[in-house]
Amino acid sequence: MRGMRSFFEPKSIAVAGVSADPNKLGSIIFANMVENSEKGILKARVYAINPARDRIGNRPCYPSIRGLPETPELLVVAVPEAQTVAVIREAATSGVKAAVMITGGYAEVGKGDVEKRIGKLAAEHGMRILGPNTIGLVDTWSGVDSLFLRQTKVLPDGSQVVSMLKPLRGEIAIITQSGHLGEAVAEELAANGVGARAIVGTGNQLDVSVEDAISYFADDRHTRVVAVYLEGLRDGRRFMETAAYAARKKPLIVFKVGKTGVGARAALTHTASLVGDYEVYRAAFRQSGVIEAASLQELVDYSVSLLMLPWAGGRRLVIVTNAGGVGAIAADEASKVGLKVEPPSSESRRKLVSAFEGQAFASNASFSNPVDLTASVTTDQFVRAVGLASGLEEYDLALVLPTHHAPGMNHDVAEKLSEVISKTGKPVVSCVIGNSELASRIHKELMAKGIPSFPTPERGARALAAVAEYAEASRMAPRPDVLPKKRVRRFSRKRGPLPPTEVSGLLRSYGIDEPKSIVLRSTKDLGRLKRFRFPAACKLLSGGALHKTDIGGVVINVRSESEAEQILDRFKKLAAGKRIRFEGMLVQEMVHSGVELILGGTLDPTFGPVVILGLGGTYTELLHDFGLAVAPLTPQEARRMLIGERIGRVLGGYRGGPRVNVGRLCKVVSDFSRIMVENQEIEQMEVNPLIATSGCIFSVDARVILGKD
Amino acid sequence: MRGMRSFFEPKSIAVAGVSADPNKLGSIIFANMVENSEKGILKARVYAINPARDRIGNRPCYPSIRGLPETPELLVVAVPEAQTVAVIREAATSGVKAAVMITGGYAEVGKGDVEKRIGKLAAEHGMRILGPNTIGLVDTWSGVDSLFLRQTKVLPDGSQVVSMLKPLRGEIAIITQSGHLGEAVAEELAANGVGARAIVGTGNQLDVSVEDAISYFADDRHTRVVAVYLEGLRDGRRFMETAAYAARKKPLIVFKVGKTGVGARAALTHTASLVGDYEVYRAAFRQSGVIEAASLQELVDYSVSLLMLPWAGGRRLVIVTNAGGVGAIAADEASKVGLKVEPPSSESRRKLVSAFEGQAFASNASFSNPVDLTASVTTDQFVRAVGLASGLEEYDLALVLPTHHAPGMNHDVAEKLSEVISKTGKPVVSCVIGNSELASRIHKELMAKGIPSFPTPERGARALAAVAEYAEASRMAPRPDVLPKKRVRRFSRKRGPLPPTEVSGLLRSYGIDEPKSIVLRSTKDLGRLKRFRFPAACKLLSGGALHKTDIGGVVINVRSESEAEQILDRFKKLAAGKRIRFEGMLVQEMVHSGVELILGGTLDPTFGPVVILGLGGTYTELLHDFGLAVAPLTPQEARRMLIGERIGRVLGGYRGGPRVNVGRLCKVVSDFSRIMVENQEIEQMEVNPLIATSGCIFSVDARVILGKD
Repeated sequence: MRGMRSFFEPKSIAVAGVSADPNKLGSIIFANMVENSEKGILKARVYAINPARDRIGNRPCYPSIRGLPETPELLVVAVPEAQTVAVIREAATSGVKAAVMITGGYAEVGKGDVEKRIGKLAAEHGMRILGPNTIGLVDTWSGVDSLFLRQTKVLPDGSQVVSMLKPLRGEIAIITQSGHLGEAVAEELAANGVGARAIVGTGNQLDVSVEDAISYFADDRHTRVVAVYLEGLRDGRRFMETAAYAARKKPLIVFKVGKTGVGARAALTHTASLVGDYEVYRAAFRQSGVIEAASLQELVDYSVSLLMLPWAGGRRLVIVTNAGGVGAIAADEASKVGLKVEPPSSESRRKLVSAFEGQAFASNASFSNPVDLTASVTTDQFVRAVGLASGLEEYDLALVLPTHHAPGMNHDVAEKLSEVISKTGKPVVSCVIGNSELASRIHKELMAKGIPSFPTPERGARALAAVAEYAEASRMAPRPDVLPKKRVRRFSRKRGPLPPTEVSGLLRSYGIDEPKSIVLRSTKDLGRLKRFRFPAACKLLSGGALHKTDIGGVVINVRSESEAEQILDRFKKLAAGKRIRFEGMLVQEMVHSGVELILGGTLDPTFGPVVILGLGGTYTELLHDFGLAVAPLTPQEARRMLIGERIGRVLGGYRGGPRVNVGRLCKVVSDFSRIMVENQEIEQMEVNPLIATSGCIFSVDARVILGKD
Repeated sequence: MRGMRSFFEPKSIAVAGVSADPNKLGSIIFANMVENSEKGILKARVYAINPARDRIGNRPCYPSIRGLPETPELLVVAVPEAQTVAVIREAATSGVKAAVMITGGYAEVGKGDVEKRIGKLAAEHGMRILGPNTIGLVDTWSGVDSLFLRQTKVLPDGSQVVSMLKPLRGEIAIITQSGHLGEAVAEELAANGVGARAIVGTGNQLDVSVEDAISYFADDRHTRVVAVYLEGLRDGRRFMETAAYAARKKPLIVFKVGKTGVGARAALTHTASLVGDYEVYRAAFRQSGVIEAASLQELVDYSVSLLMLPWAGGRRLVIVTNAGGVGAIAADEASKVGLKVEPPSSESRRKLVSAFEGQAFASNASFSNPVDLTASVTTDQFVRAVGLASGLEEYDLALVLPTHHAPGMNHDVAEKLSEVISKTGKPVVSCVIGNSELASRIHKELMAKGIPSFPTPERGARALAAVAEYAEASRMAPRPDVLPKKRVRRFSRKRGPLPPTEVSGLLRSYGIDEPKSIVLRSTKDLGRLKRFRFPAACKLLSGGALHKTDIGGVVINVRSESEAEQILDRFKKLAAGKRIRFEGMLVQEMVHSGVELILGGTLDPTFGPVVILGLGGTYTELLHDFGLAVAPLTPQEARRMLIGERIGRVLGGYRGGPRVNVGRLCKVVSDFSRIMVENQEIEQMEVNPLIATSGCIFSVDARVILGKD
């Protein structure tokens, strides 16, 4: 956290690049700072720097940093790219603590060398840099504001029109790898009356990274929620550590773009072809307790909900509406996002029915879930029903859908709702559908009273799911802080496939079993099969033949020594025909009544070793259905991250299949994940099939590829 | 279409249930009609009916329908439920052509008998009924308006506030099974300056159904797009016919709720457990050329886009932006919804680069896809780039993302964009992100100029995908109008599983082959295996044993007559042990080198016979990955509907597997679909596995369950 505070709470600020032209970036930034200063929001002293001018407006202008009355704690650099090296050198050597580099034109257009030189200069003198190529930062509490976007623009008739809503003061910290989108989030919040703690645009991340900013806000007293727009990470492990730290203190929500990018790995194993970049990010988010948003809108919606709402006790949702269709839409979406929409108990139902006994609307109403009070309900009846339904023990969350078009519903629904909702102590959101002034009034009043309000039932349902997810993530056990000690292992080669005997040795040393097996090199070895228990699987051994099944190098159900002899002969011919080296034939006892799985590992460029577990069989790659997690994994984490609903059903004894020893399986996965972490010479590793039985777990076939490309 | 016109263009209208209380539904409706009449929008003569009053405001009020100066063509019924039967009787016998029954409290609360009586009365006299339990209809062209929602409400200080935006006149017809949601769609359109042709709420659909309304608007000259909010259908086949008819004339967009409902079928086959209600709806939509919207917002967005935009030549999209992050989000979403976001050819790239040679912004810009012009681009440069990029031959669609916050972007971007976009002749949409007055101005101006504008890049991308989908759907071959002639087949029983020999006969009669097979009942029959070609599969025959594999009733790879004899003995004991009847053992030649598929059929309660095709194997049910379509299917339709990307890859020769004769397979599927249509005594039918080879397609095991529950 070295020096981060100087960005947010500096005693003095200088802006380099303030010019006579009020439309230049430096001029806009200086004007904003001066305005904040005059309003008393910004306490820091503010200086303008421009060697060509004495004054900017009614303020003095200084020729250089050294010419200022004091060394500024924070410097905002908005000079042309050609002048930046000189400015940064002067700043670093003068004792400036932090610099925001607005100027672009560096690494993002291939000029990484200049950027590196600047970074080196700053690092030597302990000066922190935000940017370059960034909107910088807005701190709504201290008044530091380097946002160079104008809040108004001029129309042809000379009149001014508001072109940007200024961020309001609040408790949602926005960290962004795209300046404009950080502003867009703050503007959407402001339009709904919600404030931002700060906006931090990390730009090219020469020094201050997304992780630095997350870490700062994790400990910041003004921050209650952290919202991040992410394009990519350099060091996935550091992100996970920082995110996990922050997520234990407050909600951390991330919207990640680049979902469709495909990794550039050489797919020597199924695993490598299965693991997409974005999927690794998603796993890392889940493992760190990050709430993932699927769009910028969700980033805003989830931030607002997690800011305003109390803790969710679970996923059981009650929906209350006076319009059946809206309720149906809400129920659909809620189920889709994993909330439980179940009818009330018969006792609760009776309670609801009797509360409205004899009232006109009640004869057509449905006291199930959704509770549909129909269009003839009045505001007071509706509000009372919300209080009763959301107070029921069998529900953790409520989604309230009042249609103000209905004749009996009045403008005061917002105020009355907020009263009963605040008493429930549960997360409750409301949806106001419509585009009229009344709709807007009700929406604003609900928001002002701390009830998140959304224009569609779908957004409301997803926001509640995020609140439930946060509560669940907070209950999850922390990841081990420190990686296990790295073992030093010697492999017989540096790259390419590891010979099968070494693979076996590696697995054995981590406690992963293989079925009993014997290697035959020629007919002379056949005598070793004397006490072998058939049926067996015979496999051609050849370093180059990784997908043995595809070339006919695997025969299963071999029933006798004489069959094995025939196959040995066939394999020799096959290897010669395919021009691959014949290294022998593995004769392996067949494991019966087990579930066939694939357990794989690969090195992700951002996150390092990752592990997958999926159902095995011919269509593994095609079906793309598996669990994925960043290694290492405890057995508990392996279960949570890798055993989803489908694979869980198979492991639990599917269609007469065996019930697998899941505890033992998770231990094997955990051990496998340690292999990947402790032997990072391994680029790809795969056990396929891994046969899981009710007792033991066997690696029936494994391959290891060494050496990063 | 009998009588539908009387709802929309009646010569005279009477409202029954107009009262002195202006807040009663009948009073609001009458007031709306009078207002439209006074404004000259409504040409029809309007009458109020209430036996207790002489005048309503300054208008005369009549005691009954017979007491009116003329028999009204259209009657709006807003009297209490208890009076409706009498009113409808009077109307029907007086020659009223059409009645809108606003009043609720019938079938939706279990009083279906009263509703039926009303329906019978109307039908006897040829009077059409819309409702009951509906908002009725709004026709923005003729001025007929039975919407009983007030457009203003009164605040506590006595001031009025707009509580509903009145639908604007336009060309999007809205059909809704929930009155409120039809209004919500029209209001959202109106807020964006887009008009509605009409809103029709079908309510309880005693007479006029969603299909009737679709059919009416298909031929209506004022309608260019039909938007439907759907909760459920009674007659799926009639919907498909009507929808297909309408979709050939104009875009038909449907948003369906009830996605999570689970069918109540007895799952005697995999097929029955695989087919969900909503999935059948989706298949029916695709087969009829319906564009499906996933939310109310999408229903609006797709309607607007399909109304405003020209024909899409394909799915190749170019994105133009001045903010990298927004472009990245758009590219993600576009790829997700099946649009192609590929870089321009090197020639096109050169064209773009040279157009801006030497201009300051161009050195930092990226002329790929997205085209990112950076925040330093000006309006004119941006607009020129949009013209060039969207004009490129390699693109069919363009998504334009101008960030008005950037210093060089001005208010005139909307006007200038619309000029260049109109010249491209391609579908182009724009996104305006932000909540300021300027954002709102640009959005409104784009919409007014016929460029669909959305507040998020995701919504823009999805709207373009819908436009591309509509163009594709329009190119698809029409479904056969008439079902093939129904064959009369005699089965040996009425319900339960059909004996295997009859199943074989049924398949054979439709040209579906089985591998050579022989049935053995005892060891005496073993002689019949003399010329049999081993290996064989041996299967226990027993009517009650449907999932034979699960109980060990299938042995494959049987290599000789003596092995078969042992198995015969074992099956007898197995049947005895499981207390199922031993009906013999089927010995069947094994088909090698084929792809294992499942081909199934079941009777859907709404759509009748449906067919599925999926990959076979143990995990079929678990993976829930198959194609589904409503039968009958031509071979072409079978290919389009049932062979998705994954199964297509397998059929094309996956991982050394055989390349399947897909033409022959589709013929078999088509024949199978005819079995389901021509023998509707069959409730469920399944070929599992269906083995598809490069030559023939074999039914290796089939079962047929007769009799509806």
